[in-house]
Amino acid sequence: MGSNRRRMQGFSSLITFSTAVERMSGREWEVAAVESIEVLKCSGRISAADVYAGENSPAFNRSAVDGYAVISSDVSGASEYNFITLEVRGEIEAGRSGSASLMHGEAYEIYTGGELPDGSDAVVMAEYAERSGNSLRVFRPVRKYENVSRAGEDISTGQKIIGSGEIIRAQHLAACIAVGIERLQVFRAMEMGIISTGNEIMPGMGVRNTTQPLLLSYFSSAYLRTHDLGVVPDDPAAIRSALEKSLSSHSILAITGGTGLGSGDLVADVLDGMGEMVFGGVMIRPGRTVSLYNVGGKPVFSVSGLPVAALISLEAFLDPFLNLLTGLKRTRAVVRAAVTERVANREGMRSYLRVRVRNTEKGLVADPLRITGSGILSSLLLSNGITVIPENREGLEEGEIVDITLIGDVY
Amino acid sequence: MGSNRRRMQGFSSLITFSTAVERMSGREWEVAAVESIEVLKCSGRISAADVYAGENSPAFNRSAVDGYAVISSDVSGASEYNFITLEVRGEIEAGRSGSASLMHGEAYEIYTGGELPDGSDAVVMAEYAERSGNSLRVFRPVRKYENVSRAGEDISTGQKIIGSGEIIRAQHLAACIAVGIERLQVFRAMEMGIISTGNEIMPGMGVRNTTQPLLLSYFSSAYLRTHDLGVVPDDPAAIRSALEKSLSSHSILAITGGTGLGSGDLVADVLDGMGEMVFGGVMIRPGRTVSLYNVGGKPVFSVSGLPVAALISLEAFLDPFLNLLTGLKRTRAVVRAAVTERVANREGMRSYLRVRVRNTEKGLVADPLRITGSGILSSLLLSNGITVIPENREGLEEGEIVDITLIGDVY
Repeated sequence: MGSNRRRMQGFSSLITFSTAVERMSGREWEVAAVESIEVLKCSGRISAADVYAGENSPAFNRSAVDGYAVISSDVSGASEYNFITLEVRGEIEAGRSGSASLMHGEAYEIYTGGELPDGSDAVVMAEYAERSGNSLRVFRPVRKYENVSRAGEDISTGQKIIGSGEIIRAQHLAACIAVGIERLQVFRAMEMGIISTGNEIMPGMGVRNTTQPLLLSYFSSAYLRTHDLGVVPDDPAAIRSALEKSLSSHSILAITGGTGLGSGDLVADVLDGMGEMVFGGVMIRPGRTVSLYNVGGKPVFSVSGLPVAALISLEAFLDPFLNLLTGLKRTRAVVRAAVTERVANREGMRSYLRVRVRNTEKGLVADPLRITGSGILSSLLLSNGITVIPENREGLEEGEIVDITLIGDVY
Repeated sequence: MGSNRRRMQGFSSLITFSTAVERMSGREWEVAAVESIEVLKCSGRISAADVYAGENSPAFNRSAVDGYAVISSDVSGASEYNFITLEVRGEIEAGRSGSASLMHGEAYEIYTGGELPDGSDAVVMAEYAERSGNSLRVFRPVRKYENVSRAGEDISTGQKIIGSGEIIRAQHLAACIAVGIERLQVFRAMEMGIISTGNEIMPGMGVRNTTQPLLLSYFSSAYLRTHDLGVVPDDPAAIRSALEKSLSSHSILAITGGTGLGSGDLVADVLDGMGEMVFGGVMIRPGRTVSLYNVGGKPVFSVSGLPVAALISLEAFLDPFLNLLTGLKRTRAVVRAAVTERVANREGMRSYLRVRVRNTEKGLVADPLRITGSGILSSLLLSNGITVIPENREGLEEGEIVDITLIGDVY
């Protein structure tokens, strides 16, 4: 597909978002590499496997409070005016208690996390008892297993801890450690290189390159590292050289600029000569000029040089692409809120509406900012969320509840 | 305050959360350092100043589409059956166009981002015109400024781009670059060291240290880096040495374990000898054993050795502390959702309820998991949010709308 055919193409040649995702799914991509790494280094990475607990946590019955391990039936009648006296056999620190055991009439002073002595089935909190030497007065009854964390009560053998495709968070790490899992299979962090093209953004040409830093910062995460691959002029040899130099060292390339009928379609011409076009031109707005090439199994996204269009193009396709490669489930927080005004949609377009989500008495609401404005950074600056209006909708009604991907804090 | 007084202290000696925050605010802390760094490196940092645009963006009227720059009144009567013919004077690439200008009856082919020629006030989209040589047929009228991004329409001189205390995001960076801001005043990333204490979690003692990795991963961010300072045994000299060694190189220290009546209150005894106790014991649950010391202007948080209690203690106090030092506004996404079950609260306690937030037809709902369970990791593993039940509430009603801090994805 040469530049003449593309130059004057209108909407007629655009495909739908779902067709684009289908075509993406139908191609052969280089397989995402999996590595086994220490649990402690997995924060923010994508799990490459379902992870199950191989043992119980806690491994033993342990005290949840500081107090006294007792046999609950011994103190069933205890009250402030009718305390029950037990004999303190010793003290149990946090951790395994070894061979401690007790019989009726006996208690152990026990610290939070300590293993219950054999025979005991509950812990009286410190504030409801009074120790004097080896004599203990108990002022309240306890139920069986009260103040006790039972073996396996937290995490039990066979329980799923992490699903394949989930982003590994602090709580997952800690749970793995609790059940003795030392390494995890995770997808190797992908490296996404971002190349900007355009004579106008070369140093000294008077137009500032806001798109590249926006993308570098927005998409950077523990599982997808972004790399600034500089700016190249509108020159086929320079573009080709920049792409070739970066292909082997990156998992994904994104190249911005030269996607309209301006710039002579240089990027498309170069990519046509390097690999296969998977799709080119999608009915999304902003960002409809997005195209995807498969260059020897590596994805190269060609997106607008305008910041918002470029961001939405990648926002739309990076998640499905990573889902395809890794099963990634979700990357950013999604909330539901009522839109505060009617918003019109252009027929057949999948529109990415920037919104400002606010907390109100009636719940979350979203003030629509704008759909259009490929270059309007303030539509991102003022927004904290993005919602998608599907192709088959003429718009959103006032008060309609929509799903919103959060891109900032909600106050 | 020695260990005997602390050993048997009950709820009576606990203070309220707001009293604790007040005491924290009343102390002298080492001032948070501010540095001036390149905009591109500010992602995720806390802004130390209000930032305003010093110029307009766009700096000039520019085309928002690929098409033809015209004088709108020239094409007001255009239609598919009654097209209007203009003369194409040339082509304008993206960026500054220099001295291009046009008169009635004339047009320029213009590419997205190109500067409008003097005299033109609108752009006809490529698909609504047909060029043949220098002759252009226009099939649709355009309104004045249609498809034009006007100078300053995105960001205007004097507009606030970032507020002091806000976390700098991708959109902030890009907006700064758009208006020529090259460096920002940000707070130097704080370094939080985490020391674990406890004989039971020393290597080979049979109890796994889940608390330290949980905290290291959970609190790590661009503005607060976390550092593993290892595990020390329940020995005053070892604890003191670990603290002293780390004080000068860290902005914040957190030390876990030894906060109950177990472990002989070793941490408190050591800290009593090193600095001033700001507060010790707060009516929050879990995590009530938290205390804060001021050691030569540096904060040392002493928290439970149990994972959930330790996390909630720091979750409760780190944000107010950072707010005090930097004006930090918010650190994690907050959403509102309806709780699906009644939850009882213990009188006078500020309770941190872990919840599972779900999307439903009626909006967001939150299934309450649990308040208690200082050591129950699965309460975090299964949750994606935390909501606070204030001291003056006996609980939450079914259906009540609450604010929830998200700690995971909402599906």
